Amino acid sequence: LAHHEFDAAIELASAGEHRFSGATSPAYANMVGPFGGITNAVLMNAVLMHPQRQGDPIALTVNFAGPVADGAFEIEARPVRTNRSTQHWTLQLTQQGSVAATATAVFALRRDTWSRGEALAPQGMPPVSALPRAATSGRPAWAQRYDMRFDEGELAVPFDGQEQPHSVSRLWVRDEPPRPLDYASLAAICDSFFPRIFIRRRAPSPVGTVTLTTFFHADSVMLAEQGDRHVLGTARALNYRNSYFDQSAEIWSDGGQLLASTHQMVYFRE
Amino acid sequence: LAHHEFDAAIELASAGEHRFSGATSPAYANMVGPFGGITNAVLMNAVLMHPQRQGDPIALTVNFAGPVADGAFEIEARPVRTNRSTQHWTLQLTQQGSVAATATAVFALRRDTWSRGEALAPQGMPPVSALPRAATSGRPAWAQRYDMRFDEGELAVPFDGQEQPHSVSRLWVRDEPPRPLDYASLAAICDSFFPRIFIRRRAPSPVGTVTLTTFFHADSVMLAEQGDRHVLGTARALNYRNSYFDQSAEIWSDGGQLLASTHQMVYFRE
Repeated sequence: LAHHEFDAAIELASAGEHRFSGATSPAYANMVGPFGGITNAVLMNAVLMHPQRQGDPIALTVNFAGPVADGAFEIEARPVRTNRSTQHWTLQLTQQGSVAATATAVFALRRDTWSRGEALAPQGMPPVSALPRAATSGRPAWAQRYDMRFDEGELAVPFDGQEQPHSVSRLWVRDEPPRPLDYASLAAICDSFFPRIFIRRRAPSPVGTVTLTTFFHADSVMLAEQGDRHVLGTARALNYRNSYFDQSAEIWSDGGQLLASTHQMVYFRE
Repeated sequence: LAHHEFDAAIELASAGEHRFSGATSPAYANMVGPFGGITNAVLMNAVLMHPQRQGDPIALTVNFAGPVADGAFEIEARPVRTNRSTQHWTLQLTQQGSVAATATAVFALRRDTWSRGEALAPQGMPPVSALPRAATSGRPAWAQRYDMRFDEGELAVPFDGQEQPHSVSRLWVRDEPPRPLDYASLAAICDSFFPRIFIRRRAPSPVGTVTLTTFFHADSVMLAEQGDRHVLGTARALNYRNSYFDQSAEIWSDGGQLLASTHQMVYFRE
């Protein structure tokens, strides 16, 4: 497997007990600072790399407490409680002693049990090959790291200020170049949906995710089966009110299995 | 206003800088230990009571790391970063030095901005007066602290093992006796939906929420307008797989405004 920019971006070095050091990657830069999804992924990676880690991810919540500056950062990842089947983590991402992000994670050993889907995978999606790759020119660097193929709810180019009745998007998405899906890349993809207010208003505004929660439904076997093919993503908002809106998204395998669901609150200005 | 059991259950005493002491309340007991919603509420209350608190709740994530025993507990609530409009908190609930819950919260000062609903309030709900109050006999104490009136998806009595095609519930719910809605009681109501697997399978199984995230869309004016009348709750699951399922819920005002949306991952055994 050739070296992938994603792996370089989430690379961490051990820096003592419960501590890791890393650095932002220009390849995953956003308008200002790094793409939130790569921060989500590198916090996930700190737990994945931790020698005391037990089991696979069930949930990860990342709070974006302040701007992440381009450059070095440190992550503290601490297993605060390990039970027979679950393990609870608290994390902080700091730069020069200032907290840029806090996080909590739940990992667990799963057992084979009665299982059912309840939500349905989006129906009627055209095949990947029938949809053009979304343009990335003029977009931040991170957007060029994804191959996105929209069936609905693409970012308008240019913005025309025509308010839409809803903000639903459906698309095929994968890392670009292709990379086998794992928990870290899935965590990043969960934040790869453009802010819903851009889809709804078709107008620019300053925005920033303040908190992002991701639930992992896939086990490692399902991720391996997905390989490096496109996953199906869908996103929407429930409500925009007085500086904040929410955004929910689902990531489905191309075989129709729910891999992750994710929810965030986003700050906006007019 | 008469003393309400809810206020007694979330009561905290200052126990030093960033520290509070409280105790579980038999009035909000679950099958084992306290109702998760009251733990959600008391953690919210620690931030609300903190002298450095700025603004209103935007998001609260509580991780149920281990069982909460009946009796005394201590909460540490620490403002890890205060920005111009947002404030980020980390919390821990401990009993005799053992971590029973971790949490993070985001508070913020909101501004008047462009605002829109996107999700619709459930349509066609019968008025509160047209629905009977759900029975509470044989239920844990906490369930008796709520007046629930189901339009759909009530807990089957008795369980008959008839698996249902989905787990959607819609109901009117308020504190019993009535109590004016505030952020703490809204946080508790967000966890008052019975575990979706009980609705789906109509069969008992050991369950436990491992993580609960709540987004607050309401400002304090909207909560005051709601007063002590029933709010409209709706809940569903996306997926049940190998020991875990997710559960999402929305709380709407009786005037059709989204007050809160909430998402949890729940452990289950067969």
